[in-house]
Amino acid sequence: MLIPTFASINFHTMAKDFTSRSQDFSKWYNELVVKADLAQTSDVRGCMVIKPYGYSIWESMQAELDKMFKKTGHVNAYFPMLIPKSYLSKEADHVEGFAKECAVVTHYRLKSDEENGGVTVDPDAKLEEELIIRPTSETIIWNTYRGWIQSYRDLPLLINQWANVMRWEMRTRLFLRTSEFLWQEGHTAHATKEEALKEANTMLEVYADFAENFMAVPVIKGVKTESERFAGALDTLCIEALMQDGKALQAGTSHFLGQNFAKAFDVKFADKNGKQEHVWATSWGVSTRLMGALIMTHSDDEGLVIPPKLAPFQVVVVPIYKGEEQLEEIKGKIKPILDALEAKNIRVKLDDRDTQRPGFKFAEHEFKGVPVRLAVGMRDLDKNVIEVARRDEKTKETVEVGGVEEHIENLLVEIQQNLFNKAKTYRDDNIRTVESYDEFKKVLSEKGGFISAHWDGTKETEEKIKTETKATIRCIPLDAVEEEGVCVYSGKPSSKKVLFAKAY
Amino acid sequence: MLIPTFASINFHTMAKDFTSRSQDFSKWYNELVVKADLAQTSDVRGCMVIKPYGYSIWESMQAELDKMFKKTGHVNAYFPMLIPKSYLSKEADHVEGFAKECAVVTHYRLKSDEENGGVTVDPDAKLEEELIIRPTSETIIWNTYRGWIQSYRDLPLLINQWANVMRWEMRTRLFLRTSEFLWQEGHTAHATKEEALKEANTMLEVYADFAENFMAVPVIKGVKTESERFAGALDTLCIEALMQDGKALQAGTSHFLGQNFAKAFDVKFADKNGKQEHVWATSWGVSTRLMGALIMTHSDDEGLVIPPKLAPFQVVVVPIYKGEEQLEEIKGKIKPILDALEAKNIRVKLDDRDTQRPGFKFAEHEFKGVPVRLAVGMRDLDKNVIEVARRDEKTKETVEVGGVEEHIENLLVEIQQNLFNKAKTYRDDNIRTVESYDEFKKVLSEKGGFISAHWDGTKETEEKIKTETKATIRCIPLDAVEEEGVCVYSGKPSSKKVLFAKAY
Repeated sequence: MLIPTFASINFHTMAKDFTSRSQDFSKWYNELVVKADLAQTSDVRGCMVIKPYGYSIWESMQAELDKMFKKTGHVNAYFPMLIPKSYLSKEADHVEGFAKECAVVTHYRLKSDEENGGVTVDPDAKLEEELIIRPTSETIIWNTYRGWIQSYRDLPLLINQWANVMRWEMRTRLFLRTSEFLWQEGHTAHATKEEALKEANTMLEVYADFAENFMAVPVIKGVKTESERFAGALDTLCIEALMQDGKALQAGTSHFLGQNFAKAFDVKFADKNGKQEHVWATSWGVSTRLMGALIMTHSDDEGLVIPPKLAPFQVVVVPIYKGEEQLEEIKGKIKPILDALEAKNIRVKLDDRDTQRPGFKFAEHEFKGVPVRLAVGMRDLDKNVIEVARRDEKTKETVEVGGVEEHIENLLVEIQQNLFNKAKTYRDDNIRTVESYDEFKKVLSEKGGFISAHWDGTKETEEKIKTETKATIRCIPLDAVEEEGVCVYSGKPSSKKVLFAKAY
Repeated sequence: MLIPTFASINFHTMAKDFTSRSQDFSKWYNELVVKADLAQTSDVRGCMVIKPYGYSIWESMQAELDKMFKKTGHVNAYFPMLIPKSYLSKEADHVEGFAKECAVVTHYRLKSDEENGGVTVDPDAKLEEELIIRPTSETIIWNTYRGWIQSYRDLPLLINQWANVMRWEMRTRLFLRTSEFLWQEGHTAHATKEEALKEANTMLEVYADFAENFMAVPVIKGVKTESERFAGALDTLCIEALMQDGKALQAGTSHFLGQNFAKAFDVKFADKNGKQEHVWATSWGVSTRLMGALIMTHSDDEGLVIPPKLAPFQVVVVPIYKGEEQLEEIKGKIKPILDALEAKNIRVKLDDRDTQRPGFKFAEHEFKGVPVRLAVGMRDLDKNVIEVARRDEKTKETVEVGGVEEHIENLLVEIQQNLFNKAKTYRDDNIRTVESYDEFKKVLSEKGGFISAHWDGTKETEEKIKTETKATIRCIPLDAVEEEGVCVYSGKPSSKKVLFAKAY
């Protein structure tokens, strides 16, 4: 697809004095998000503005996930963003987890402020019951499902919602932890426990597939320990990724909710024999946090690196010319190439701005992570060649004009795969098995990454390790081997190794 | 596209005791929205739940509009849903229009309620400045644009946002007027007045194109009078449609905002000569209200009628069979047809539920407005024919199996066109020119519809007519002829006829 008019993406905020990863990873990330025009903070505490370049990546993520959800039988719907305060209290664990830091609507009207000018809250417009901006929608959705489910014929309900949610976070970081964020939340209802468990697993697989094959982010599939579970879930499945600073990032979760919400909201169905049973539930979600995972997995000291499948522009074409006339000549010659790329559904941008020099454009596209750059000058065209540069390896090559489209098409596939391979090698190299707590602490402080270790299965040990080292159990991997061992902390018996890490 | 797994759409809430349009149009609409599983009210005052079947139509609308926006050079972004109270006061007209009935966030934390159980608002977590859930985003966006625009090179900014917004409405109706609704809002910034005016016009054309060619809803393009303008705009362009009860519905608006918001938020740019100028602006939006327009334009006493381009399923196939074996035989025989339709990107649903009889399914698909229904029995298949029924005209025909896909493909185009033609004929028949106020009142009370009449151009006359008849000036049509006339109310001179109607 040729996109000539991405004019609203502000390309001129260039990377100057850009911090490197080794200097300060956290600062590198913060600068990159802002300088690459992905997002910025707003005047509203903890809320971000997602800029067009960043939003375009999120849109590609949405489009792909939505396709995957529909292929697995789900449909979309929309539920109110405001939740009556009392709903939150109906599920005991849920209220503990979610009813604390949240935005509370108490009034529904403003009036002119006679004293100070402007407007002021009208005290007469106080709500009888306060409303909460949804931190997640289990409560309002299950309250609605009660009216939708009477018999086994109404099940399963396989529904997803794309929405904004709000959690009043004290310490926020763009994409990683913001008060308002965008996400999707699936909420399904089933007649049997087995079917709900299967659904939770199916969606975990969808998330893993998406992370690895679209984001090029390798993930470990696992189960959360009780203390890391979603508030209200019986089991939380997750995918965990490893960032370049050795910290883990939870990239998606899929919860088996048992009958907790059905019981809290009295949702029953008549089975084939007419017997009334509580409904089984799952919920699952990924959010704009994925943007953080994407950035921290691939990008480097020269700026963003975006996998081709999610790049707003996959190919940028920079004409090297002197004068209007030569530019027109070059444009004429490369038009068939642009058309051919477009016909292959490749997103191409011709950067023919006359306000910037080629060198500036090269640096800019590198910083913005455009996977492939073509530099086209008359000298090359006369020789029937084009310079093709790839962002991931920062290499250039000269390619014959004939067949350049196929070359690029293949190159995009290769870059996508290369990014995944590099990330996977890094990740695999940073999973270390330790046998003692000393070794645990040493690896954690010197290398970071995932630590595979035996754990006695108790909350107490988990909590102590967390307090002493800041590492948490990221998950019990689904493919963990059953074996006899002893907990690295307590020395008590353990049957499986779990994965520890410091995490975002 | 074959959609075998739309299981979550609840098909069994059938239309019983369905009110007809002539009995009570308003009741007919309310019942239809609920019984056809489009939407329902929620426990949260004025907020609706958009059910999967309804949401699917909205998704098709979104997809098409988004394509049109991108084709005209726009990109998407996302801005915070909460707006500091003080922002609303910055543009004088805007605050009058929007800062009154809105949801106000005053606190950011709940705590356990020791006395009454549950949770209660933590008085210690009171915000210094209250936040408003966006009723529209001009203020927060223009506050952000200040940082994005320095020079003419940063312009134009052509940005759209898909979002939820909140206006605390006292009297709500599903889709037509809800406190929370979904919409898109475009916010563009330009270097010149001419360019901004052109943009406002371009988007009006996009909306008209979408309404007529996708929704099959004929619209009149026009300009609002001053009193009907968007709060903060210098000009509001609109598209107006006519519902089957003779009331008008504003289906989309595009505003020329002049420099009002640039001045309010101090957004200037350096032009080519380095001179600082205020930026020119437009904003434009359509919302889930379009769902109401769609329903009230086409549907009838038998239920929904949905134009093929927006129908969740364009074709439903009902097998007529006795026993599992015959069903399998039929399925085998029609599979090539389903595949061929799918290959043509036609959305087909095979309704092979064994829990319902064919007659029940026919009634249900009719009520849900599926444009084309195929009934397939062995007797017909043996004769190599299939029964094809169309929803719009409620007619059936017998079609040869060979070539049935092309027949259906053409039929869908024909239905789309037929719906538009019918709506246009009705609309055109219901624009009546009147020459006197008596005639005005008579036509309004006896026939409704649009009334084309001369108006003296004053607020006073407009207001008096509104008070006396409930009719408002819907718009000054863009194609209104310049002519000498006298105002039907005041007898004062007028140069153009305007369109009056009672409106949603």
